[in-house]
Amino acid sequence: MKSQGVPRVQHTDTHEWDDVRLKQMISHVAPLNQQAQDEARRRQDQLTKPPGSLGRLERLSTHIAGITGNPRPHLVRKAVIVMAGDHGVAAEGVSAYPSEVTGQMVRSFARGRAAINVLARRAGARVIVVAEALPPELPIVHRKVAPGTANLALGPAMTHAQTLQAIGMGCEVIEAEWARGLDVVCLGEMGIGNTTAASAIVAAITGLAVADVTGRGTGIDDATWARKLKVIEQALSLHKPNATQPLDVLAKLGGLEIAGLVGVVLGAAARRIPVVIDGFIATAAALVATELCQAARSYLIAAHRSVEIGHHAALERMELEPLFALDLRLGEGTGAALALPLLDAALALLDEMATFEEAGIAGALAITTT
Amino acid sequence: MKSQGVPRVQHTDTHEWDDVRLKQMISHVAPLNQQAQDEARRRQDQLTKPPGSLGRLERLSTHIAGITGNPRPHLVRKAVIVMAGDHGVAAEGVSAYPSEVTGQMVRSFARGRAAINVLARRAGARVIVVAEALPPELPIVHRKVAPGTANLALGPAMTHAQTLQAIGMGCEVIEAEWARGLDVVCLGEMGIGNTTAASAIVAAITGLAVADVTGRGTGIDDATWARKLKVIEQALSLHKPNATQPLDVLAKLGGLEIAGLVGVVLGAAARRIPVVIDGFIATAAALVATELCQAARSYLIAAHRSVEIGHHAALERMELEPLFALDLRLGEGTGAALALPLLDAALALLDEMATFEEAGIAGALAITTT
Repeated sequence: MKSQGVPRVQHTDTHEWDDVRLKQMISHVAPLNQQAQDEARRRQDQLTKPPGSLGRLERLSTHIAGITGNPRPHLVRKAVIVMAGDHGVAAEGVSAYPSEVTGQMVRSFARGRAAINVLARRAGARVIVVAEALPPELPIVHRKVAPGTANLALGPAMTHAQTLQAIGMGCEVIEAEWARGLDVVCLGEMGIGNTTAASAIVAAITGLAVADVTGRGTGIDDATWARKLKVIEQALSLHKPNATQPLDVLAKLGGLEIAGLVGVVLGAAARRIPVVIDGFIATAAALVATELCQAARSYLIAAHRSVEIGHHAALERMELEPLFALDLRLGEGTGAALALPLLDAALALLDEMATFEEAGIAGALAITTT
Repeated sequence: MKSQGVPRVQHTDTHEWDDVRLKQMISHVAPLNQQAQDEARRRQDQLTKPPGSLGRLERLSTHIAGITGNPRPHLVRKAVIVMAGDHGVAAEGVSAYPSEVTGQMVRSFARGRAAINVLARRAGARVIVVAEALPPELPIVHRKVAPGTANLALGPAMTHAQTLQAIGMGCEVIEAEWARGLDVVCLGEMGIGNTTAASAIVAAITGLAVADVTGRGTGIDDATWARKLKVIEQALSLHKPNATQPLDVLAKLGGLEIAGLVGVVLGAAARRIPVVIDGFIATAAALVATELCQAARSYLIAAHRSVEIGHHAALERMELEPLFALDLRLGEGTGAALALPLLDAALALLDEMATFEEAGIAGALAITTT
């Protein structure tokens, strides 16, 4: 199990992605399997417990039955996909860390000793790191879209073509992992400056005030926070992103890792793979994905509620209720990886518990009909 | 790992327990190890993440360092102790299930296919079931205190001697498990009617109104809930339990399984073993234990907040913040077992993550001094 926390080298030849190809991908996202869901729910009500007494775990296993189409599913092959990206807006001094920390942390992921490696190992998940402009021998997926975004305070973060290409790259990572065997995917990210991008995206899509969706990121002080607000407000005035055009919002305000995760969500949903979303940045990506494709929402499982204020707004917009709130604000997919044992537990209960009939326990009928 | 979910046969010869012996046990509960805690905290601040960004997980690992006295602890040998007991008050019709379900569920635990077996297996924990008046070949610890409590609506649930004996039995179960090797213990329980006992105990100790600490248990209807309220209010009028005498409260209103768990808490605290408390009944037991011995509070980890209204009150009284809230209301130790992977994750992060220095990442000093 130890090796599961350490990524491996991958060089993917990315195809050309355009609007037509993206539309095709989106058209493959189907509704949940109602029959599998009903069958799971019926079994839940026969298990040796008062009906509903396992609360969220019952709804979780039923949900995963609907996603996978299997009334007694197991999520054996797990992956955390950590997308990294540099942000031009970091030049505005919106983070507590310098920009080079992004690449340094990617190297740390590759060595297997960052928080996400530790948590992925414990959860039995492999880690796939996607980044750019790093030495080719690094055991990551080497993306070749752009070495980083432009400064969104001065112009669009990405071109339309780059945005499509980064999304497409995310889809292709999922396809490659699906080919290796994939039952569940966690979204992770790393990028100094990316809470600024995520706040801008969530403000643009929800229409909420910037101050209501902008937090402290890695832990900035009051002055830096005020600067961050101003940068985002100016960017929104400059770009006037069209909330009904999620690709426009993403291109102008997003990041390469955020666009990549949009592709991961869409690709996973198209393959009926549950997507465990992490904190604020991953959730901003999921929000863009669901704005592009409403059907993708059903494939999302919200792991946790982070301390980032905008995370709450993005989850609410998607009507997702997170499983726990542990005051996390690290990203990397750490919250999502922490949720994996809960998913496993929920599915093991559905599969392994005895029914009242099997256990020969009194009062079962009287109870299950209430 | 499969076998860990299935209990084994045990017959313990219980010693005679009296007030002196209980006091001796309590005198062994020491404060947390400050040095181990400080050392763990120092390491946390050097790991490759913004300080504090792993939120509750950082505090959790530091706490466990203080409990165990080890600055980089691991909780390898895990047990769920499920105490069962019959309740005389079940005759008042306060539950949705008949009394015989207690014994039937104990048999189910022994067969390894109840919810707690499934969750303990997944968490790598062994299950120890403690019950009474069941066939001797059943793979459980056979307690010999009383076949059940008297009806608390009509008289004291237990005698003073029975209460002490049941607590002592809990201490001895912990001693036996400690001798086998035990790093962490989860509290579990089963007993039709025991939310009535737990509500009565929490009302007596906190002074809160009965309606504010009485929930729906296994899922009772309005009429049964009204009856349950009345039974508890009458019992409190009848017994006038003295809130400053926790043993008096426990004897008059408690249960054999609740008293047993009081002993488990005290015994584990005396051995510096972290105690993961489960739902309402286990928390009521922990509350009695902390009223008997304030120092025991530091050894408690609250797993979850259940839907039982009185659970919230008991946790607040002990100033414990649960790790998650998943609408659970099953008991058996299920919530506590679900918390084990989070504990493991928190400790793995503390132990396995690289420090900024090891990873050679910029800005570490600037950040760790804020």
